[in-house]
Parts: sequence; C-alpha cells; structure tokens
Amino acid sequence: MAPRPRAVDANQQTVADMKAARSRTSVSVQTVRNYLYGGQKVWDLRERLEKILVREPLFDKQHRDFLGRTDQFIRAAAITNRLDELRRIHSWSEEEYTTASSLLSEGTSIALHDMAFQPVFLGQGSPALMENYWDLVYEKGIQGCYLQTELGHGTNVARLETTSTYIPETQEFEINSPSLTSTKWWIGALGKSATHGIVQAKLILPNGKDMGPHLFFVQLRSLEDHKPLQGITVGDIGPKASGGMAAQDQGFARFDHVRIPRTNMFSKFAEVTTEGSYIQPPHAKLSYGGMMYIRATMIPSAGWAIAKAATVAIRYTTVRRQGEPDAKGLERQVLTYPSTYYRLLPILSRAFVFIELGRYTMKALTQMQQQLANRDTSLLPEMHALLCGLKVFVTTHGINDIETARRSMGGHGFSAFAGLGRLYIDYLPSATFEGDNFVLDGQVVRAATKLCRAVLSSTSAIDKLSLPSAYLRLLSATSEAPPQVTATTWHDVHSVVLLLEWRAALMVKNFTQTPANGDVDANVNQRLAKAVTEAFVAAQVGEMINNLAVLPSEDARVVGCLYRLYLLTSAENALADLLSVGLIRHTGVGDPTQDLRLAVKALCLEVLPNAIGLTDAFGFSDWSLDSALGVFDGRVYEALWQRVQMEPMNKDEVTPAYAPYIRPMLQRGQAAAQQKMKLKSRL
Amino acid sequence: MAPRPRAVDANQQTVADMKAARSRTSVSVQTVRNYLYGGQKVWDLRERLEKILVREPLFDKQHRDFLGRTDQFIRAAAITNRLDELRRIHSWSEEEYTTASSLLSEGTSIALHDMAFQPVFLGQGSPALMENYWDLVYEKGIQGCYLQTELGHGTNVARLETTSTYIPETQEFEINSPSLTSTKWWIGALGKSATHGIVQAKLILPNGKDMGPHLFFVQLRSLEDHKPLQGITVGDIGPKASGGMAAQDQGFARFDHVRIPRTNMFSKFAEVTTEGSYIQPPHAKLSYGGMMYIRATMIPSAGWAIAKAATVAIRYTTVRRQGEPDAKGLERQVLTYPSTYYRLLPILSRAFVFIELGRYTMKALTQMQQQLANRDTSLLPEMHALLCGLKVFVTTHGINDIETARRSMGGHGFSAFAGLGRLYIDYLPSATFEGDNFVLDGQVVRAATKLCRAVLSSTSAIDKLSLPSAYLRLLSATSEAPPQVTATTWHDVHSVVLLLEWRAALMVKNFTQTPANGDVDANVNQRLAKAVTEAFVAAQVGEMINNLAVLPSEDARVVGCLYRLYLLTSAENALADLLSVGLIRHTGVGDPTQDLRLAVKALCLEVLPNAIGLTDAFGFSDWSLDSALGVFDGRVYEALWQRVQMEPMNKDEVTPAYAPYIRPMLQRGQAAAQQKMKLKSRL
Repeated sequence: MAPRPRAVDANQQTVADMKAARSRTSVSVQTVRNYLYGGQKVWDLRERLEKILVREPLFDKQHRDFLGRTDQFIRAAAITNRLDELRRIHSWSEEEYTTASSLLSEGTSIALHDMAFQPVFLGQGSPALMENYWDLVYEKGIQGCYLQTELGHGTNVARLETTSTYIPETQEFEINSPSLTSTKWWIGALGKSATHGIVQAKLILPNGKDMGPHLFFVQLRSLEDHKPLQGITVGDIGPKASGGMAAQDQGFARFDHVRIPRTNMFSKFAEVTTEGSYIQPPHAKLSYGGMMYIRATMIPSAGWAIAKAATVAIRYTTVRRQGEPDAKGLERQVLTYPSTYYRLLPILSRAFVFIELGRYTMKALTQMQQQLANRDTSLLPEMHALLCGLKVFVTTHGINDIETARRSMGGHGFSAFAGLGRLYIDYLPSATFEGDNFVLDGQVVRAATKLCRAVLSSTSAIDKLSLPSAYLRLLSATSEAPPQVTATTWHDVHSVVLLLEWRAALMVKNFTQTPANGDVDANVNQRLAKAVTEAFVAAQVGEMINNLAVLPSEDARVVGCLYRLYLLTSAENALADLLSVGLIRHTGVGDPTQDLRLAVKALCLEVLPNAIGLTDAFGFSDWSLDSALGVFDGRVYEALWQRVQMEPMNKDEVTPAYAPYIRPMLQRGQAAAQQKMKLKSRL
Repeated sequence: MAPRPRAVDANQQTVADMKAARSRTSVSVQTVRNYLYGGQKVWDLRERLEKILVREPLFDKQHRDFLGRTDQFIRAAAITNRLDELRRIHSWSEEEYTTASSLLSEGTSIALHDMAFQPVFLGQGSPALMENYWDLVYEKGIQGCYLQTELGHGTNVARLETTSTYIPETQEFEINSPSLTSTKWWIGALGKSATHGIVQAKLILPNGKDMGPHLFFVQLRSLEDHKPLQGITVGDIGPKASGGMAAQDQGFARFDHVRIPRTNMFSKFAEVTTEGSYIQPPHAKLSYGGMMYIRATMIPSAGWAIAKAATVAIRYTTVRRQGEPDAKGLERQVLTYPSTYYRLLPILSRAFVFIELGRYTMKALTQMQQQLANRDTSLLPEMHALLCGLKVFVTTHGINDIETARRSMGGHGFSAFAGLGRLYIDYLPSATFEGDNFVLDGQVVRAATKLCRAVLSSTSAIDKLSLPSAYLRLLSATSEAPPQVTATTWHDVHSVVLLLEWRAALMVKNFTQTPANGDVDANVNQRLAKAVTEAFVAAQVGEMINNLAVLPSEDARVVGCLYRLYLLTSAENALADLLSVGLIRHTGVGDPTQDLRLAVKALCLEVLPNAIGLTDAFGFSDWSLDSALGVFDGRVYEALWQRVQMEPMNKDEVTPAYAPYIRPMLQRGQAAAQQKMKLKSRL
C-alpha cells in the first residue's frame, strides 16, 4: 500500500495556490497591463466605465445560462435600451459608448447597427440621405441592419438575386425578391429588431441593363407600431448551432415589388439620374475601406478573446491539483504538467501578439486610408491581401485556442459555468463571416503569386515591395541566405524570423514556377496563405521584440519570452514545411527537430512562474469573465457550487417529469420484476 | 461587363443536382450498406425498428432546437418512458431494444442506466445483490447511475474523498462526504432521475485502514415519491457548455453518514467479512474488462458520428453552387472545389475505417475476455494500452471531423437546422470522458517504451509481440527495411503501411534511448501515442483492403480507394514525423512531399463521383439525420425555409421586446434627432 496521503482540504488549498502563484510574479502587472491597453489612460477609461456597468442589475451575467433563446433575446433588448439610457445620463462620447459596449461583451442586435449599418451609411450615404437620416441613425431613432447575403448566395456577391429596378416615371426604385433563394438571410438584427435596412440588390436600369450589386436604403418596419411594411415579409431565421449568438435575431426578408425614392440609393460612389442613366463611380475600390477596417478590428478582437480563454484556463489549472503527489504530499498543479503548459502558454503568447499586432496593422491601415482619401490606391491590393490572410490566421487560431483552453480544464471545462463554451460558440462564426476563411486563402495566394512573378522577372520589383510582401526580397540573388539550423538558431530571434520568411518565399516560388501543365495539390491555397501570413506576423513580432525597450527590464524580459515563444511555436507548427523545402534537413542520425522542441519547452518553463501575473495583466474582472473556473481568488469549487444552486431544475425537489414519465416506467418495471420473482418462487 | 448569367432557379437546381449525383454512382449502395452494417440482417432489423420509431409523435425531432433545457429534459423523460412501453408492446429482445435506443439518437438519462449502471451491476454484483435487485435493474423498476468523479477529483481515482466505513456492530457501511470537494459531480442521471446509484468510495475498515476505492450500492431516492432519502443532498449540476447534453441531468450528491447493509458492497472481486476483515480480490485487473469494452464501443460510435457529418456536408455541398460558372452557366458545385473535397473525402474515409475497425477491435477484445474468464491476463496490458490509444485517436478525429464538415458548409452550417452543431457539442465531451485524452496518451507511451526496451534487449521479445505492438518487429536487425520513397510508393498499400509502422518504431526507439539525464520535449506523449496508434490502424486498414475481395469488384475498387485515401491522409498528416526521422528526405531540389500530396488529390478525384452513393450507403433517413442541409432529395432551401417557419419568435408579428425596450430607445433617439434638427434650422 502507498503511504496514506496527508489530509488536505482541496477547497482551502485553491486560495493558497493562487496567492502563491501571484507572489511568484516578477513582472509589474500594472506596467504590462498599460502596455497591453496602449497606455494608462485607456485602462482608466475602461475601469471607470466598468464600475458603472457592474452596478446595473440588468447587466448581471450569472443567470444567462438558464435562459431560453426568446428570453435571451428580450434580455439583450433590455440591455440595449439601458445602455442607451446610460449613454445619455453620462453624456458619453462615441469612444466612451463604444468602450462600454465592448466591455459589456453581450451579443446584442444593436451591435449590427453600430458596426455595420452606421459606418456604411456614413461612408456611402448621399448628401440627401445624410441630411434626412443621419441624426436618426446616430441617435438610434431608427435601428438599422445590413442586408447582403441571401438564402442561395453568400460568397459570390455578384450572383445575388434581389433586384432594384429604376422606374423613371415615379423616380423610384422597385426592390424585389424574384425567387425563394433570393430571400435575404442571416441578416443580423433583421429578424425582430431593425426598422430600416441597407439592402444590396442588382441595379436594373430602365433599358434592362443589369449593373450588378448596389446599396439601397429601405424602411422595413413602421415607426408607429413596429409592424413590417407592406410588401415585406420578415422574420427570424431560428436558432444557431449549439446555442451560438442566441440573443441575436439574425433574420430573413423578402420584398414584393417594394418602392423607395430615387434618393434612397447609396450614391456616394455611383448614381442613377432622374432619367435613369448610370453614373460610373470614380473608383469602385474606394468603397473597400470599410470591409478592410472590419477585418483589421478582428485582429485585436481575436487577441482579447484568446486572452479571456487563457486567463480562465491558466487560473483553473493553477489551483486544480491532480495526480502525482509532490514533496508536501499535495497532488501536482495541473498547469505544471508539460502537456498542459505546452498547450496553454503558446495560447497566452498569441493573445499578446494579436493584441499588439492589431495596433501595428491599424496604423498601416490608417496610412493607406489617408492615401485613399487622395485617390491613391497603390497600397490597396497588398493591404487587401494582407488583411484577408490575417483574418484567416487570427480567427483560425482564436477558435482553436479557446477550445484548447477549454479542453485543458478536463471535465469541469464542459460545464456552462466554465464560461469558455459560450466564448467559443459566439466566436466560432468568425471563421465564416467577413469572408469564408477557405475562400480568402485564395485571395492571399493570388496576390502573392502575382508579386512573386514580378519579382522573379525584374529586380526593380524587389525595391517596390511593401511590408506585407517583404519576404519576397529573399528571392533576389543578393539576398540574405537562409540560416544554417543548429541548436543555437532557436535562441536567435532574427534567425527564426528569417526561417519563416524563407519558408514562405520558397513555397510561393515553387508554386509560381509550377509548369502550366503541372498539377498542384488540393490544399495548396491553405498551405501557402498560412506560410505567407506567418512570415509577415513573424517579422512584426521581431519588431515587437525590438520595441520592448520601452518597458522596465524585467517586464521586457518576460514579455520578450512570450514573443519568442510565439515565434518558436510558429516554427514548430511549420515543421513539415521547413523540412519539405529543405530549410531543416535530416542528417542521418537522430531528429533534427528536437532542438526546436526542447527550446519551446525551455521557454515555457521560463514563462511559467509569471503565467498568473501575465493573465492578471489582461485586467479582466470576475464580472467580465463570468466563469466559475476563472475567479480571481482561485476559489473555483465554491464558485461552481454557488452557480449550481441557481439551476432552475433544482427548485423542485421532485422533477415535474416524475409523475407523468418516470413513475410509470418504474412502476411497470417493478410489476414486471415482481412477476418474475413469482415465477421463480413457483419453480 | 461580364455576360449576364443564364437565369437559373437555384432551388429547382438542387433536385437536379442530387439526381445527377446519384446517377453517377457506380457502387451498389445496397451492397456497400450491408458491408458497413455487417450483413443484410443487421440492416433489416434496423429498418424494421426505425419504421416503428418514426411513427411516434413523441420522437419527432424537428422542434427540439426550440426547447429550453428543462423542457428538453422533460421531453427526454417522456421519450424514455415511451421507448420502454414500446419494448414491452413489441416484446423486444435486448438486441432490439439496444438497436432502437441507438437509432433514436437522443441524449437520455436512461442511457447511463443501460450502459454504465447495468453492466457494472451484472459484472460485479454479489449473489445477494443479484438475487434482490437484478430483476428490478433489468426491468427498470429502479433507475441507476454510477457515481465516480467528485468535484475535486476526476482523473486521479485513487484520491477520491468519499468514504465508506464498515461498522461491524450493525454490519453496515457508512457512506460519507467529508468535504465540499468530495461531492460526487458530473454523474449522469443523478440530477433528477436516478433512484439508486453505484457509489465509488474509499473503503475504511474498522481498524482505520484505508483500502482505496470500492463500489457500493446506495438507494438515493424514495420509490414512493421520488424524494431524496435522508442524509442525501442531490441535484443537477446545471447546463453544459454550448447547450451540450442539455436533455441529461448530470448531477451532484453529498452523503451525510448514510448507512447501507454490508451486502450492498459490490463484492464479486473483493469482500468485507461480517467482522470487518478484508478479503483480497483474486485478480484486481479482472474488473478492467468493462472499461475496455466501453472504449472499444467508442470506435464504431466515432465512425457513425463522422458518417452523419459526412452525409450532411457532402449532400449539401453537392447541391450548393457558388462561384465560378461552368459551361452551362451554372455556378460550380461547392464539393468540386479542391479545398472542399480535400476536407470532406478524408472524413468519409475515416467513417468507413472506424466502423470496420470497431469490428476488428471487438473481435480481439472478445478473444481477450475469453482468456480473462480463464484468469489468463497476458493479453491485458497491451490491449489496455491499445484501447487507450484508439480512444484518443477516434475521438480526436471525430470531434475535428464533425466540425470540419460543419464549417465546409459556410454560413448555413452555423444554423441549428444544419444539425451538425448538435452532433458536435454532444460528441465533444468524448475527448474528456472515459479517460482524458491527454492522460491516456501517457499510458500508451508507457506500454510502448516498456515493450521497446524488451525488444531492444532481447530478440526473443520480438516473437512474443502481439498485434498492437507488431510495428516493434521492425527494430529487429533482420526486419524489413523502410521503403525508399518515390512517387510510386504512394500507390503501394504495403509501402505506406510500412512507412507508418517505421515512423512509430523509430520514434519510440529514439524516445526510449533518451539518456537518463536527457531532456524530452513537452509534447512527446501526444506525438508518440499518435504514431503508435496510427501504425496499428494503418496495418489494420491494410488488412481491410485485403479482405475487400468479398465485395463485387466495383464496390471493392471504390471502397478500396477510400481505404487508400485514409492511408495517404494519415501519411500526409504525419509528414513532419516522416521527415524528422528521415524516412522522407529533402534531396536538394523541389519538395519531396509533393508526390504524396498529388496522390491524395488523385484519390479524392477517383472517389468524388461516388461521394453521394457512399454516403447513401450509411443508410441514414431524413428523420435520423434531422438536418435541413442533409435532406435526401437535395431540397435544402425549401427545408431551411420550412424549419424557419417553426421558430417560436416568428409567432408574434411584433416582438414582446418592442414595447418595453425597443420603442423607448427609438423614441428617445427620435426626440434627440428632432432636437438637433431644430438647432440646425435655427443656425
């Protein structure tokens, strides 16, 4: 028999473990926090607003998990209404309102008004539309939505079926849904909330010519009684997978020859005259800015979503003990198992990288938009391809990382009270919306091969490469050679970045040089887009490491470890490619990848003592995380116990299913058993 | 302007596309179906039973997605009761009942009685328990559950805190929960249903000695009124992540010095005498059989879950058209894009492999159990390790494959009506239950290294290797050399299997030979367990290909393609390993992995024309799939439209959220906008 383990109150131990972990922290949580938020001011604003939000009983999150979908929708409407009241009570600026709204982190339908409807209205509304509606839009006197996708078409916008036919006689457009599949579908806030919509429809001129998709402003519901207007059939498209986005009313709409005035066309970039002639937009691509902006915001969003998952999982696995006893007879903290920290610390590193990368990308985008304002579109194609690649990259990681964090928590991770199931399912559609990830990969590859061809055929093209394509410089005859990989390579940031850039350059070159009659594999777009995007991000992380000098040395050291961990994990995930293109080679004995794998482990162990401090630096309150396993003080078992007491099924001592269903089954069974007993006793 | 596309009714086109796909089928759907089911008889039984089930209004699935959790639980209880009635009405045999229950594919709490409680009762119940309770158990006169995990402990069963102290004076055990964390937790059917439970508790003898965990039979609720018995606090642990297993009542229980008779100990393998002495079990490992059996059943279960996902996604992407127009002006069928078929056809291949692999494994297990019955445990350690590895392997793929299939369907895949969200979330916990996948990996590696050491130190050990470890034969000096990889390698089944076996052998050998002071990487257990399991499965798939001769030649050819696709995909996923250990090497130019990737694509294209036929062979009815996107006739848009009309939120023309929440916000906004207008007009 093993010696009897020392009696330990596992519940009390959680507090001690969390305290001990905090006492091991060598970074300044406040300094790292300000670094993540981009300054003390941003943090202060966030903290001031959260204090207001937390006081609101309506904003309590602990009972969400018990509500059915309709009640979740009604709750979200109540929250929306209260948030709007608060904005007026406190005279919030636009920035304050946006911050408060994102702090709430509740799925509400008004988000579609704020993030899709309002910016498009502002960006493309004609002077007449702005004059008549902008104040109503801004003040939420109307609630808007953006109607693009249809039942039959998502990705291929050019094939949308809804028509908008100009009628010169009355100077109106007639919006029509000619078929079942032309039904607008998946439109956020359309189901039960929106009063107005921006409808994407094929513009048909009086001469019958189809000018392709354009935007039109259409009132959907009455401002008197909220009933749908005549000719409009509208409703909710039903529940989403695994209860995702349950509080939102994604909707459908069909238009039966609905008339709107000519001035309701969004005509900043294209116009139809009173007579029905089409005036060409000056530069169609000028309208791309909005979509690119949304994709750019998805980078830090991914970072913050991952940050939440990392915080919950690292806190829980710090206080959860299981398995091998340590010197004190305590079981081992789950986070200290290699298979656990190997999963969680790279996630933590991506949270940091994506938050910072969001800032870098937004800066580049602002620069491009200033050029666009001067009608200079030279940066646009590369920026577009970059943002496609980054969108795929951060959402793919975001989804995986949240789920990996959830799964690292074992059984309790599958409780709704762990909070990561909700985070996951609400984040999941990001792989599909704003461009399906598999489709966007193709755009990245198209841009990369075009540039690669230019570089291969003319050295002058190399000088013109902008940041997103800098890796292609390596294809020049005079470029830096790939590093010879040895054990020390993995300790040198420049070498690791260079390897990841070389990998992209060689893969794109190999692909570009495929003979015209040559076959390419079925997954090539996905592999190439990943390599190209990872080369860019690696170079940016190299920059981030250079820029850490602004931090005090210990903070810089630890955050630097995280960034290096990101780079090494990136290289480790790219091993098949690095070996395939010959950047790492088998030398006849052993395993040439072992040095890298050991370097990953060593960095993990360097980060480990600060894991709790670094997650504290994200600054999430218990209210905001809403997770029994991610509570700040570590009392996870008490938190789980308290949550369970709220479960509505526990209100009845005996379930209402007993009398009608359980009892009859048991009674039949008892009778049958008795019958058998009788038979046996007769034998 | 591009030429205006031919007007096509996308909705009508779906039917034509599905018909065309079926007409391209070259296999006999019936023959392949019988192959998958293991004979016409099994299929006939299934079909006969489904006809009975489909007629039951209670078993309608179309309204499930609209129910809150409590209503889902009550519905499941009603279904359970009705299924029990049907079993009596039709005098179903055990096999018929089990088949009907699995056909229903509803999460019910009675499943825990059938699959966890009843087998343990039967396998370990003492003669006294059997005599008094077996008829009640079998007839469901009582409803059972199996109480193992606690709030504080899952994986580490040895540290469970619940105690069962023997009291010789009254010849009773006293079951007690000494702490918060000793609360039994996550116990299926305990929350609101079960009347009795098998409780795992530390057996404490009168001399104070702790004998570790044993099993005890405890009544939990009254058979009179279903109220919890005195001293027992019991309830539901609340909702699971993303609405998973919503209809089930996983529960918690605390015992306050609850007394049970001595005869309620499950004493088939260990006993306490009336005086309180412990009688050693003859062979503790004999009780392992049950757990191994459950893990073995998870192999075909994974196959059938993947089969459902593959059926839905392949049907939908066959009728969904998007993007590039073909010769007829029709957009391209989504399944024909390389990035789509490359994702979906390997999934289809795994469904076939896992279903067949389940049969192979069950045969091996039955053989071992016959030996166990004769107290011969020689096969046990390897079989245990194999089943650990297979459990990890099939559940990891199952989860990924269902989600990959869902995501391949783009936007509509995120609708609850697509059906794969539900399949996913209910399948997801399989990564954690019956042994957390990351913990089980360690057991696979431990067994593999032990055997590897034996093989390396003695040639006689090689002759004793059983099937799960056959790959280690390659470490013998006289073994078959690894194949020289060329383009033709990938067309030769034996070579691919051999490569995957060599990869496992070399990786395990490298690991085993790590010097005692050497470091190993943090992910090593995961990589090794995967390599070992994949080697075994590859060899089995080689066998499956050999055994295809029983099928008519065209069926054998097509199913053979699927099996070869499985092998190549397995090799492709293992590329980083194959390159790391030097089985594939970079030769200085090009990419040595390209041949494999092109071979994967070529096989996909060979399978593609039969994709619909092969999914039809799974034999799922529309009722069973319950997916608007997976309907047999291809009318996906009509099916989505019909489902949406059932959404409860669409019953009200104006949402109940309007009057209290939406209207006030709009009215405040309208007033504010008016105010602004006034100010402007004054300027």
